[in-house]
Amino acid sequence: MASTGANHKDLENHHSDDLVRLCNPNVAQMKEDVLYHFSLSTSTHDFQAMFGDVKHGMGIPSIAIMLHELIKLLYHARCTDVTIIRIGTSGGIGLAPGSVVITQQAVDAAFRPEFEQMVLGKRVVRSTDLDEQLVVELLQCSKDLNEFPTIVGNTMCTLDFYEGQGRLDGALCSYTEKDKQDYLQAAYAAGIRNIEMESSVFAAMCSACGLRAAVVCVTLLDRLKGDQISSPHEVLIEYQQRPQRLVGYFIKKHLGVA
Amino acid sequence: MASTGANHKDLENHHSDDLVRLCNPNVAQMKEDVLYHFSLSTSTHDFQAMFGDVKHGMGIPSIAIMLHELIKLLYHARCTDVTIIRIGTSGGIGLAPGSVVITQQAVDAAFRPEFEQMVLGKRVVRSTDLDEQLVVELLQCSKDLNEFPTIVGNTMCTLDFYEGQGRLDGALCSYTEKDKQDYLQAAYAAGIRNIEMESSVFAAMCSACGLRAAVVCVTLLDRLKGDQISSPHEVLIEYQQRPQRLVGYFIKKHLGVA
Repeated sequence: MASTGANHKDLENHHSDDLVRLCNPNVAQMKEDVLYHFSLSTSTHDFQAMFGDVKHGMGIPSIAIMLHELIKLLYHARCTDVTIIRIGTSGGIGLAPGSVVITQQAVDAAFRPEFEQMVLGKRVVRSTDLDEQLVVELLQCSKDLNEFPTIVGNTMCTLDFYEGQGRLDGALCSYTEKDKQDYLQAAYAAGIRNIEMESSVFAAMCSACGLRAAVVCVTLLDRLKGDQISSPHEVLIEYQQRPQRLVGYFIKKHLGVA
Repeated sequence: MASTGANHKDLENHHSDDLVRLCNPNVAQMKEDVLYHFSLSTSTHDFQAMFGDVKHGMGIPSIAIMLHELIKLLYHARCTDVTIIRIGTSGGIGLAPGSVVITQQAVDAAFRPEFEQMVLGKRVVRSTDLDEQLVVELLQCSKDLNEFPTIVGNTMCTLDFYEGQGRLDGALCSYTEKDKQDYLQAAYAAGIRNIEMESSVFAAMCSACGLRAAVVCVTLLDRLKGDQISSPHEVLIEYQQRPQRLVGYFIKKHLGVA
C-alpha cells in the first residue's frame, strides 16, 4: 500500500512470511469477526475446518467485497503459500474470439497500471502488480496443453461495461464510432489485449496482502469489430471453459498429476 | 449528461415525452440489439410481450449493467410514464438500526452530489438528482403506514464496502478509529444519513434517461457505533422487508387499492 504509507512489516502480526497477512492490525484484536457477505463468524465457525459457498456479482465492488472476506478467511485459517488466480471472460482487442489472455499488467481506463480508490473521502492509488513468474508458468502450461491460442498482454479494467468500455450500444452513448476506434487503437498501442471489470482491484488487493496472483481471461469477441457478444451459446460456453482448463492443468502440474 | 454536452432533445428519437428515451442515437438504427446479460435479443424476443429474469451482484458496475439493459428494454418495449425505485440495505449514520432512509441526494465519498465515470479514458461527471416529488410522496406513504421510523436524508454511495466506507474490519485498513469517526461525523454534518453502493449511478443514469427515480434503503446498523452487522438473522430479514413494504404501499396507493 505504497500510497498510504503503511508498512507491511508493521502489519504482519508476527506471522511467518508465507502465511496470509492482512494489511489491518485491528482484525487480530477482535474477539469476533463476522464475514457478513459469507454468513461466517469466527465465533460460530471453525475457519480452519470449513469453507462457505458464496455467490457474487460483477465488477470491482463485488470482487473487492469477496476479496476482503476471502483474504480474512485465509488469514483466520492460517493458510500458507497461497496462489489466487482470477479466471473469467473479457472483450478482446485485436484477437480472435476464444483467445486466452494471461495478464501482464492490469491497467485502468486511462491505461495506467493503477487502482484508484476513495478512502475516507481521499483518493488512494495502489499499484496493480501481478506475479511475473506465474505469468511465465501459465504461458508454459498453455503451450503444454496446445488447445487454444494464449497470449500475454495488458488487461484494462473498467467500472462500466458500456460507456466505460467505449461501447456504442448502451442506454447512454455520447461519442462516435471513430472516437471508439481511436480509443481502442490507443489501448492496443499501450499493449492492452483485453478488457474486463475486476483485474485492477484484484491485483491491487492481492499484491498488498502478499498473495501470488494471476488473471486469466478468455476473449468473447474482438471489440475492434463490434460491441455485441453474438457467438452461439455453445461456442461461448466452450470459450468460458478455456481459462478453467488452463488453470486446471496448472494446478495438476503443481500437484504432480498432469 | 451535462458534462458531455449531449442534448437530450437531440437524442430522443422523436418519441413522445413520456416514453423512455435512450441517450444513445445508435440503438434506434441497430437491426438487432442483444441485451447480453439478460440473454435477450430484439431479433428473438418480443420486448413488448415479455420480461427476463435476471440475477445481479452488488455495487455500481453491477447495477449500471442492469440499468443499461433495463432502460433499453423499457425503450424497446415503448414503456411510458416509468418510475424506478431502488430498494435495498445500507449502513446508517446516527440512526437506530431498522430506520428507513428516503434519499434526498446521492453523494460520492467526498460528499459531492456527483457520479464520476471514465468514458473513453476521460473523467465524465454527472449529476445525481432524484425526483423531489417522489421523496415527498414516499415520506407520506411512510406516515400512512406508521410501521417503522423513516427519514429523508442524503445517501453516500461508495465503490467499496470496507475501506471505501471507513470500516476498520477489512483485509486492508490504514487509518484509525478516530480517522473513521471524524469521517463519518463529517458525513453526518453534510446531511448524509446512510451509506450504500448503488445510488449514485442509479440516480445519474435514471436522470439522464428521463426516468422518475427514488432510492429507499433500510439501515442495518449505526456506523457511528460499529462496523459489523451483528443483529440476529430474523431481525435483519424483517429490516430488509421495510423498504419493500413502503414501496409496496406506494404502488398500491397509486393503483388506488391502498
